[in-house]
Amino acid sequence: MGHSIHSTDDMDNGSMPSSRRHANGEPNVQKVAVPPKQNLLKDIKSTTKEFFFSDEPLRPFKNQTIARKFLIGLQTLFPILEWGREYTLSKFKNDFVAGVTIASLSIPQDIGYSKLANLEPHYGLYTSFVPPLVYACMGTSRDIAIGAVSVISLLLGTQCSAEADPIKNPIEYHNLVFTATFFAGLVQFLFGFFRLGFLVDFLSHAALVGFMGGAAIVISAQQLALILGIRGFTKKNDIVAVMQSVFGSVHHGWNWQSAAIGTPFLAFLFLATYLGTKNRKFFWLSAIAPSFCVVTSTVIVYLTRVDRDDVQIVNYIRKGINPVTFQDIYFSGKYLAAGMRIGAVVGMIALSEAIAIGRTFAGMKNYKLDSNKEMLAMGSMNMVGSMTSCYVSTGSFSRSAVNNMSGCKTPVSNIVMSGVVLLTLLVITPLFKYTPKAILGAVVISAVLTLLDYKEMIRIYKVDKFDFVACMGAFLGVVFTTIEMGLLIAIVISVLKILLQVTRPRTALLGKIPRTTIYRSVEEYPDAYKVPGVLIVRVDSAIYFPNSNYVKERILRWLVDEEEHLTAKGLPQIKHLIVDMSSVTDIDTTGINELELLFRTLQNQDIQLILANPGAAVMDKLHSSEIEYVIGPSNIYLTVTEAVKSCNPKTTIDEA
Amino acid sequence: MGHSIHSTDDMDNGSMPSSRRHANGEPNVQKVAVPPKQNLLKDIKSTTKEFFFSDEPLRPFKNQTIARKFLIGLQTLFPILEWGREYTLSKFKNDFVAGVTIASLSIPQDIGYSKLANLEPHYGLYTSFVPPLVYACMGTSRDIAIGAVSVISLLLGTQCSAEADPIKNPIEYHNLVFTATFFAGLVQFLFGFFRLGFLVDFLSHAALVGFMGGAAIVISAQQLALILGIRGFTKKNDIVAVMQSVFGSVHHGWNWQSAAIGTPFLAFLFLATYLGTKNRKFFWLSAIAPSFCVVTSTVIVYLTRVDRDDVQIVNYIRKGINPVTFQDIYFSGKYLAAGMRIGAVVGMIALSEAIAIGRTFAGMKNYKLDSNKEMLAMGSMNMVGSMTSCYVSTGSFSRSAVNNMSGCKTPVSNIVMSGVVLLTLLVITPLFKYTPKAILGAVVISAVLTLLDYKEMIRIYKVDKFDFVACMGAFLGVVFTTIEMGLLIAIVISVLKILLQVTRPRTALLGKIPRTTIYRSVEEYPDAYKVPGVLIVRVDSAIYFPNSNYVKERILRWLVDEEEHLTAKGLPQIKHLIVDMSSVTDIDTTGINELELLFRTLQNQDIQLILANPGAAVMDKLHSSEIEYVIGPSNIYLTVTEAVKSCNPKTTIDEA
Repeated sequence: MGHSIHSTDDMDNGSMPSSRRHANGEPNVQKVAVPPKQNLLKDIKSTTKEFFFSDEPLRPFKNQTIARKFLIGLQTLFPILEWGREYTLSKFKNDFVAGVTIASLSIPQDIGYSKLANLEPHYGLYTSFVPPLVYACMGTSRDIAIGAVSVISLLLGTQCSAEADPIKNPIEYHNLVFTATFFAGLVQFLFGFFRLGFLVDFLSHAALVGFMGGAAIVISAQQLALILGIRGFTKKNDIVAVMQSVFGSVHHGWNWQSAAIGTPFLAFLFLATYLGTKNRKFFWLSAIAPSFCVVTSTVIVYLTRVDRDDVQIVNYIRKGINPVTFQDIYFSGKYLAAGMRIGAVVGMIALSEAIAIGRTFAGMKNYKLDSNKEMLAMGSMNMVGSMTSCYVSTGSFSRSAVNNMSGCKTPVSNIVMSGVVLLTLLVITPLFKYTPKAILGAVVISAVLTLLDYKEMIRIYKVDKFDFVACMGAFLGVVFTTIEMGLLIAIVISVLKILLQVTRPRTALLGKIPRTTIYRSVEEYPDAYKVPGVLIVRVDSAIYFPNSNYVKERILRWLVDEEEHLTAKGLPQIKHLIVDMSSVTDIDTTGINELELLFRTLQNQDIQLILANPGAAVMDKLHSSEIEYVIGPSNIYLTVTEAVKSCNPKTTIDEA
Repeated sequence: MGHSIHSTDDMDNGSMPSSRRHANGEPNVQKVAVPPKQNLLKDIKSTTKEFFFSDEPLRPFKNQTIARKFLIGLQTLFPILEWGREYTLSKFKNDFVAGVTIASLSIPQDIGYSKLANLEPHYGLYTSFVPPLVYACMGTSRDIAIGAVSVISLLLGTQCSAEADPIKNPIEYHNLVFTATFFAGLVQFLFGFFRLGFLVDFLSHAALVGFMGGAAIVISAQQLALILGIRGFTKKNDIVAVMQSVFGSVHHGWNWQSAAIGTPFLAFLFLATYLGTKNRKFFWLSAIAPSFCVVTSTVIVYLTRVDRDDVQIVNYIRKGINPVTFQDIYFSGKYLAAGMRIGAVVGMIALSEAIAIGRTFAGMKNYKLDSNKEMLAMGSMNMVGSMTSCYVSTGSFSRSAVNNMSGCKTPVSNIVMSGVVLLTLLVITPLFKYTPKAILGAVVISAVLTLLDYKEMIRIYKVDKFDFVACMGAFLGVVFTTIEMGLLIAIVISVLKILLQVTRPRTALLGKIPRTTIYRSVEEYPDAYKVPGVLIVRVDSAIYFPNSNYVKERILRWLVDEEEHLTAKGLPQIKHLIVDMSSVTDIDTTGINELELLFRTLQNQDIQLILANPGAAVMDKLHSSEIEYVIGPSNIYLTVTEAVKSCNPKTTIDEA
C-alpha cells in the first residue's frame, strides 16, 4: 500500500486513482482533487443540461447585442437566412437539376401514395407542394426530399379509416386526416421545442430496417390489386389476407388488359432500377423511368381506350393549387381525440424516418444535422400542410437518395421540386385522367422495394444477433399482422434489449497471464491461471437497481463454482475475492446496499472482499455512503495487481 | 505496432487484447483465442439462459436417479422437507418465542389493518392464519413474518372500493377482494414459474423507501379519524383531504373520550418503540406493547362503558376459523377484469415488499434467498388464502424485524404465530368487542411510522441525488395525490433513470499525467496535460441505439471546443482523435453505423480516428461488420499509450 501513482504498472485503466485509497493516509505525490460536493439543484441542473441541451443551442447567443441576438434567433429558426447569403448560381444549377429529377420521381409516386392514404390522387401532389417550401426555409438537411411517402400514407390511411369510413363518410374522413396531420406536426414541433429528440433514438436502426422492409412487402402486395385490376380488394394489410384476396379473385376478378399494361412497365422499372444501382452512369434512367412510364401508358390508354374494357384509370384529378383546409380541422368533437392519437403515432414515425435519412446524408457529406431544428421544421411544415390540404409529409428514402446523387447542394432542390409540382397542378393534371392505375401500382412497387434493404439485414445478422431478432420481429410483425403491431413489436423488442443489457450485465472471471502482471478473462485466455486462494471477478457495467442483485448473486455463484472445483481437487479454499471495477461507471443506493450485502455474506464465510480500480463516480459514492469504511479503505486498490499482491505477497513475488 | 502483450505498460485495463489488432499480422507470442462464431439459436439460447435461469435451478437434478429427482423436485417446491429433517428442539425453543412475540404484535395490527381494506376486523386475523402456514412449507426466508400489512391493505381497499362500494354492496365488495387476492397469487406464482423475478428489481430501493414512507404518513393521518372518534371521515387518501376532514370536524365531530383513551396509549407505544430501538434489552417492550394496550384499553372500556358516550368500539368480531370462499371468487362477469387488474398491481407490490425484506435478512444472516421460490411460495399462499377468506398477505417490515430480533431460526415461527392466531380466533375474539377503535388507530400509527425511514432518506440524499428525486417523487406522490399515483411516479422516475443512464453516458477528455504513461480525465486531474495535436476521449458505456448518436455528437463537440481553444491560442490543430474504449462493454449495429459516420466526418476534416482498447465483444463486432477495415486495423491499439505513440512518436519519447 501507499504506493505512488507513478508506478508504471498502472496503465490506461481508464479510471481515477484516489488519494483516499491509501489506507495509511500518507500524502500522495500526485494529489487527486476530489470533485467538490454539488448540491441537489446544481446536480439536477447539470444533468438536465446534458440531457436536453447537450448541443448547447444558446451558445451563439453569448455576448451579443440584442439586435444581433434577434438576428441569430431568426437564423436559428430559419437556416435559409444563413446559408442563403452564400448561395450562388453554380449551386442553383445543381439544385435545379436535382429538383427537376426528384419532381419527375415524385409526381407519379404521389398519385400512387394518395391511394394508400385512401385519398384522391391530387392530395399526394398537394403534399409535395407546400411542405417542401416550408422545410426549405427551416430545415438543416441539404439532401432530404420532402413529400408524401409510402409507409406514412399507408399508416395514416389505415388508422384514419378505422375511425371514419373513407367511402361512406368521405368528408369526415378527409377532415380527420387533416386533424391527424395537424397534431402530427404539433407533436413534432413540441418535440423540437422541448428538445425531446432523443426519444427518436429509441427506435433502433435494426427495428427501423425491419419495419421499412415489412412495409415494402405489404405495400407491394397491395399494388397487385391495381396491376391485376381487381375490384373490391381487401382492406386488410397483412400478407395472408392480401394474397387470399389476390388468388380468391383469380377466376373472375383479374383484368388481363390491366396486367398486360402493368407487367411490362413493371419489368422496365425493375430493369431501370437495377441498371441504376449497378452503374452510376445509368442512375438518371431509374430517376426518370416512372415519369416515362406514366406518360407512355397514359398515351397508350388514350389511344386504345382500353378503359372501356374495364382497365381502371385515374379518371378524375382536380386541377389547381391546394384549397385551404384550416376550417376543416377538428378542434373539438369526437374526432379530436382520434386525430391527436393518430397524429402522435404517425408524427413520431415520420420523424424517425426523416431523421434517419438526414443523419445518413449529413454523415456522408460531413455537415451537421440539428435534430431539434429538424423537428421544428417538420412540425411547422406539417402544421402548415394540414391547413392547405396536405396530409403528413416527411423525408422519402428513395427520393432523398436520388436528390443526393443528382448533386443537390441545398434545400433549394425542394423548392424547385415544389415549383414543378405547382406547374403540374396548374397545367398538366387533367392529362392524368387516362393514366392506368396499373402503372401507378408498378411505380409504387418499384419505389417501395428499395426500402427492403436485405443487404443491411444480412449485415445486421452478422454483426448483432439480438438486433437481428428486433429487425425480424418488426419485419414479420408488419408482414403478418398489422403495420401498427409491427411497430409495437419493434419498439417492445428494442426496449427489451435495453432492459436485457441493463439487468444482465457481463461478468468475467480473471486470471493472470504467465510471466506478466496482466489479468484477463480465463475464458478468453486459456493460458491465464487463477491465483491460489484468490478469486478475481470483473463486472462490465454500472451497478444500479435493475442489476445490482443479479451482480451480487452472479459473483457469489462464481465463488460457489470455484469452491466446488477446489474442494474436488483438494486445493486451498478462496480467502480473498477481488472485484475489478474498472468498467463500473456508476453505482446507486441499491447497488451500494447490495455491495454491503456482498461484503457481509463474504465476511460470514471468512472471505475478504477487495475492490480494484473503482472510478471517480463510484469512489465518491462509496465514500459518501460510508461503505468505504465498512469494507475498509485498505481493501480498495488502484489495480488488480496491487490487490493481488496484498492478498498473497509470496506468490506474486515468485511470478513477477 | 507489433508490440508484445507482455510489455509491462499494459496493466489491468480490463479488456482483451486481440492478435487481430496487430496490423502487420505477425504471430503473437500470447495467442488470443477468438471466441468461435455462434449461430443465432445458440446465441439466443445462452442469452435466455443467463436472463431467466441465471441461478441454474436444474443443477441439483443433474446425474440423479428418477426417484431421487422426484424427491429433489419435492424439496425444491417445499423446502420444509429439506430443513425440516435437521430441525431440533433447541431451534423450536427459539422459534416458539419469536412466533408468540410476532403473534402478539400481529393480532392488534391485523384488526387495525382490516379497516384499511374496508373489511371487518376478523379478516385481518384470517389473513394471519392460513398464509403463514403455506409460506412456512414453501418459503426460503427464515426471518420474514407473513400476514396482513398496512400498505397492501390500504392499496387493496382503495382499488376495490373504486369498483364496488363496500357499504352499499358488501357482498360484491368481499367477493371482489377475494378475486383480486386470487389473481395477486396467480400473478406471483406465474412470475416465479416463468422466472420473471427480475421485474421486481425495477422498483428501485430508493423508490420503495419513498413509497413506504409516503404510505406511512397517509395511513397515520387516516388513523387520526379513529383516535379523535370522527364519523363520516373522507374516503380520500391524500394528506390535504384527510387534514381538511380532521380539522373540518373540529367543532362538532371530535370525541374527547376517544382522544383521552387513544392519546396516552399512543404516547406509551411511541415510548416503547423508542426504548426498543435505543436499547436492545427493551425491545421486548416494543413487541408486547400493542397487545398490552389492547388488553388494558378493552378492560377500561368494559369497566367504564364509555362506549355509551360515543367512543367507537370494535363491537362485532366473528368467532371461529376462516370460512371457505372458493365459491365467491369471480371467474366471470364484470368484476373478473377488475379483479385481475387489481390483483396484478397489488401482487407486484406485495412481492416487491416481501423480497426486499427477505433479501435484507438473508444478507444479514448469510443464507441464500431464492427469489423464484419466494414467488412460488407467495403465489401459493395468496391463492390458498383467497379460498379461505384471506386477503392479500405478504411479509411485514416491522414484524419481520421483531421476528429476527426475537431469535427465530426457521419459518416455524410463522407456524407458531399462526397457531396463536388460531387460538385467538377460536377462543378470545368475542373479548375484542369492547376494544376501542382509538387504540387500534394508535397501534397502526406506531406500526407504520417505522416504515418512514428518514435515516435512509438522508443517506440516499447523500449518496445519489437522482435516487433521492425518485424517492421524494414516490413519497410526495403518495402523500399528496393517491397511493397508485405515487407508485406510478416511482416507477416512471426509476425507468427514466435507466433511460437517462442509457441515453446520456459519461464521456471524458483525457490528458497525460506528467512523468508517467497514465492518461486521466483532465477535469479530475488538473495536472494532466493534453498531448499536442491529439484529442483523447474516453466513453464510459456500451454504445448502442439509444445513445450512439449522442456519443458521436459529444465526441465531435469535444473536438470543436478544443479546436476553438487551440485556434484562439494559435496552437497546432488536432490531427488524431483517440477514443479510449476500455469501458465500452458492447456495441450494436446502430453504434457501428455511428462509429462509421464519426470516422467519415473526421476523415473529411483530415483527422485520423484511432480506437484504444476495445473489449472482446466490441472487437468481435468491429470485425464482423468489417468496420475494422474501414478504420484500418492499424488504427486500433491495445492501450492509449500505444495509440498516442503512433500519432506523435517524438513527444512521447521526450516524456517517457
